[in-house]
Amino acid sequence: MNTIFQDASTLANALAAGNLTSVALTEKVLAKIAATDNDIRAFISIMGESARTDAAASDARRLAGQSLGPLDGIPVAVKDNIAVAGVPTTSGTAAFPQVAKVDAVTVARLRAAGAVIIGTLNMHEGALGSSTDNPHWGRCQNPLRVGFTPGGSSGGSAAAIAGGMVPLTLGTDTMGSVRIPAAYCGLWALKPTKGRIPVTGLSHLSWTLDSIGPLARSPSDLGLMLLATEGFDPYDPISNALTMQKPLMHKALSDMTFGVPDAAALAECESVVTESFARIAAALQQAGAKLLPIKIEGWFPGALRRAGLLISEVEGAVGMESALDGVGLSDDFRAMLDYGRQAKSSRVALAYRQLQQLAVGFNNAVAGLDGILLPTTPQRAFAHGSIAPASQADFTALANIAGAPALSLPIAAVDGGLPVGVQIIGGLWQDLELIEIGKLMADLQPVREWAKQMEGHE
Amino acid sequence: MNTIFQDASTLANALAAGNLTSVALTEKVLAKIAATDNDIRAFISIMGESARTDAAASDARRLAGQSLGPLDGIPVAVKDNIAVAGVPTTSGTAAFPQVAKVDAVTVARLRAAGAVIIGTLNMHEGALGSSTDNPHWGRCQNPLRVGFTPGGSSGGSAAAIAGGMVPLTLGTDTMGSVRIPAAYCGLWALKPTKGRIPVTGLSHLSWTLDSIGPLARSPSDLGLMLLATEGFDPYDPISNALTMQKPLMHKALSDMTFGVPDAAALAECESVVTESFARIAAALQQAGAKLLPIKIEGWFPGALRRAGLLISEVEGAVGMESALDGVGLSDDFRAMLDYGRQAKSSRVALAYRQLQQLAVGFNNAVAGLDGILLPTTPQRAFAHGSIAPASQADFTALANIAGAPALSLPIAAVDGGLPVGVQIIGGLWQDLELIEIGKLMADLQPVREWAKQMEGHE
Repeated sequence: MNTIFQDASTLANALAAGNLTSVALTEKVLAKIAATDNDIRAFISIMGESARTDAAASDARRLAGQSLGPLDGIPVAVKDNIAVAGVPTTSGTAAFPQVAKVDAVTVARLRAAGAVIIGTLNMHEGALGSSTDNPHWGRCQNPLRVGFTPGGSSGGSAAAIAGGMVPLTLGTDTMGSVRIPAAYCGLWALKPTKGRIPVTGLSHLSWTLDSIGPLARSPSDLGLMLLATEGFDPYDPISNALTMQKPLMHKALSDMTFGVPDAAALAECESVVTESFARIAAALQQAGAKLLPIKIEGWFPGALRRAGLLISEVEGAVGMESALDGVGLSDDFRAMLDYGRQAKSSRVALAYRQLQQLAVGFNNAVAGLDGILLPTTPQRAFAHGSIAPASQADFTALANIAGAPALSLPIAAVDGGLPVGVQIIGGLWQDLELIEIGKLMADLQPVREWAKQMEGHE
Repeated sequence: MNTIFQDASTLANALAAGNLTSVALTEKVLAKIAATDNDIRAFISIMGESARTDAAASDARRLAGQSLGPLDGIPVAVKDNIAVAGVPTTSGTAAFPQVAKVDAVTVARLRAAGAVIIGTLNMHEGALGSSTDNPHWGRCQNPLRVGFTPGGSSGGSAAAIAGGMVPLTLGTDTMGSVRIPAAYCGLWALKPTKGRIPVTGLSHLSWTLDSIGPLARSPSDLGLMLLATEGFDPYDPISNALTMQKPLMHKALSDMTFGVPDAAALAECESVVTESFARIAAALQQAGAKLLPIKIEGWFPGALRRAGLLISEVEGAVGMESALDGVGLSDDFRAMLDYGRQAKSSRVALAYRQLQQLAVGFNNAVAGLDGILLPTTPQRAFAHGSIAPASQADFTALANIAGAPALSLPIAAVDGGLPVGVQIIGGLWQDLELIEIGKLMADLQPVREWAKQMEGHE
């Protein structure tokens, strides 16, 4: 297997065994980016020079027996709304050309774990949308099928991994922005519990809904990223100082119960999604898991999506106020923020109320369950230039609104085409439990089938 | 001791022992209201006829050995923003004369426990203020010193108890509205964890900040009221379905640790409050409790009060929209709601953000503590007609913003005058623990001194 299509856990083993150096890996990564990213448009800034220096330092540490752990020497790239010192933090706009002086806390923690920061990644403009057809930084392509969207807003974060340019990325998720691209590109992603991974250094779209989360090729890799980036940050006012984690219970799927809302009644799903989802549900049951039909009180996905969108527009207009009357935003994006800026206080308050109520409804529903099982999206990746389905974020926004963790994993589609994403949403602080569930589900037939198909794209 | 100045727990014992009937108690209560409420103005609606019927039914149950429990036959009155079938729910305005057809869930639950609903209580207009100098329903007096405010917005809920008109009341608390009147009138009050006592049938000021909570003469009485009113209500979208309560730990004060913020640095406190509070802190330490100085990140009481006020104005304008362009609101109150209605979306969003951040700061601070100890208010009751101190709710709003439970208990003032309120704020769902702490603190010297002084007011 080609090195650059391996997951970070595998690469870490190769580094530890002396079968690979970080310098060699980093050179391969930079070469791959140079060779393919003119077409894929996953990157905004590429940091070749500092990456080479960092990789050499990592190799030196390893030779000296001072490895910083499994991420030491692993190339990582970061969505362009998360500050990386030395390059701009554009948020996918042309309005913020200033070079960041300080790393975001997540980036600083990745560096402290030895990760080699390769560059920053293309995204939907302002993180408010899901095609990553970016008017300033290029139309980001889905490496599984060029001409199709990688999803968004963290489209570059998914395309860079699926295209073999880097094994790990950070994205951000406001209403589904790490999980939708993971689903569309056949990857794994985690939207963590709100307050678990600090957001210091993130240029917010919506401080109410945003989380930073990793995208990767495997659940083990998500675990590496979570452990490296989570934990209290005194500079983040919503960072949680508590040790909310109970000791991790190692349960088998046969000891687990998942709640399954009636997806078809909640949003119009493509039949390939419904049928593929039915296969993973059956596989879970065959593995002994119990699936219970559930209803989440107050969850009207269309109405909640509109509420979340309004909150994003209102809060986005606050965060990007300096750009709102200047240059560097597309007309469409500016119009959305302006809509938020002009919104009546009653509408804004009622939108927050819908969010508050759904959060309670979710917590009531998830109690006693190991997770809630849903398709990640009602559709698969769509063609660039076609109209983006309005309901794309209908299943993902729930976790943002509830502040809950959610894992997206890829399964094979019944038609053998582009993959389908499956989402497990957990109770608050059950992030590690979700990753454990992901590891167990990796053995199920529809997940293995996709993993095999993915090799065909390398 | 005069029956009508006894707490409900004592009255329940007398009823159970056959030394008192509910009819006799109810007649005394109605007579006391008739004799004194022209001056005190605690009531808006008095339900003599139904109360007499309910009391007779209670006595019949008791005689038949079918008592519904300790509240069976006990008179209870309800703040006039909580629906009581058969009388209007005015919210302290003249804009809502319609007679309620259905009891609020809390009232229905009290009836199911056998409580005799006596009537509805005066309040600050629209629950947005703390003097209860109501332009439509009269200037409610503090029975401890006529001419002084009972506090607000649940002023009638405190005055009715302190004036010996009823042993138990329900109030509502948006930024301190049950605790401030309790402090000003020398009573006990509980603002419960958000979602614990359902708010179905409450005419909201602010759905984000409002809780329904009891006022009483003793911590035991608060326990009776909490147990009778708490629990999931499927019609309340923020009602919590979980059993969040761990088994109650019976700890001694000597096993407890309280966090003590620097009240003087947070708001300008009257010296009598500071000195009286120092006495209860010393008494707690003498009882073996540990007091730790703490800082709550993000807590700037003045700024948070203004944020909470804006949210109340914005949400209040939504809830009372039907009255906003009609008659029945005072010019002052209408102007506040109109200010909310006109507020810019960015200001509204930033106010919600301040609330979100403080909630996290509070939860981080309270972790591992048995509670946070503060004066309930920086001042004691003030004279009607004087300017209400702007900082009255500075110490109380914290619990509303955090969704946390808070108990207010009365202590003697060092000058022997009007009482001082002390507040214990607990972690989420620690309501019963706070009541247990209150019972233990009832034995401390400054609390006993006030109880003795209170007898002098009968």
